[in-house]
Amino acid sequence: MTIQQSHRTFLDLAIEQAQIGWDEGGIPIGAALVRGDEVLAVGRNRRVQMDSAIRHGETDCIENAGRLPASVYRECVLYTTLSPCTMCAGTAVLYGIPRIVIGENRNFEASEAWLRSNGVEVEVVDDPACRALMDRMIAERPQLWAEDIGEEA
Amino acid sequence: MTIQQSHRTFLDLAIEQAQIGWDEGGIPIGAALVRGDEVLAVGRNRRVQMDSAIRHGETDCIENAGRLPASVYRECVLYTTLSPCTMCAGTAVLYGIPRIVIGENRNFEASEAWLRSNGVEVEVVDDPACRALMDRMIAERPQLWAEDIGEEA
Repeated sequence: MTIQQSHRTFLDLAIEQAQIGWDEGGIPIGAALVRGDEVLAVGRNRRVQMDSAIRHGETDCIENAGRLPASVYRECVLYTTLSPCTMCAGTAVLYGIPRIVIGENRNFEASEAWLRSNGVEVEVVDDPACRALMDRMIAERPQLWAEDIGEEA
Repeated sequence: MTIQQSHRTFLDLAIEQAQIGWDEGGIPIGAALVRGDEVLAVGRNRRVQMDSAIRHGETDCIENAGRLPASVYRECVLYTTLSPCTMCAGTAVLYGIPRIVIGENRNFEASEAWLRSNGVEVEVVDDPACRALMDRMIAERPQLWAEDIGEEA
């Protein structure tokens, strides 16, 4: 695969997770943690599925990857369908993940400047499929979305 | 109870959790989430106990509190035995927790200025029991501590 092809493939894994989350009745945000050509883990927001306040797409993915040495995180790219909240951005910075590829940031953006100021390379794809998932989420499950980002509905 | 007495009581709950974590073979960091005089949850770092990359003291505590409305978080104080990492600080900011009482920050400090810049009131107690727990952790389980903060041992 070329770099661009693998890039698309990994974002598509995150989108697939987001779609699974939506189909489960949850919040359609997914993620993939990738080292070189190896997918270490995928994950999705599981607030509804696990009654969780901390299982966002990115944190669920990082949890699913298990306990890793610092040296591994530092060679990873984190793909996520939506721009990370402060919890997920803080998790990436804690572990020194150097690069985050973001599906879209039109529906939510809270941490990109802070990530960059911490040396994280941030790329926003502005992907139509990612936007469509969140557009539908916000329209059809607004209270759940508010809860997920700590806001009043 | 006076404010000072309850303050001490809630920090002691966090310290108790930290001690349990140490006795379990884990990392001795504990937390309590308190609203007024009501303890909503306690938690402790469970990296070892749950093989977890995201169960720090504060995130475990917030997870144990369950899914809460934004209005509840905004009336809470988060007590923690050690100054929060970026993940835990980001979680507090996500949910708009307005105040964090920190047992000590001599052994670790990564987010206090950022918390304050996000409007969070931060109080550092500099408690000898909290310091003693982490002094022992860093001396006796240095590799585990490095892993927990994303560093090479």
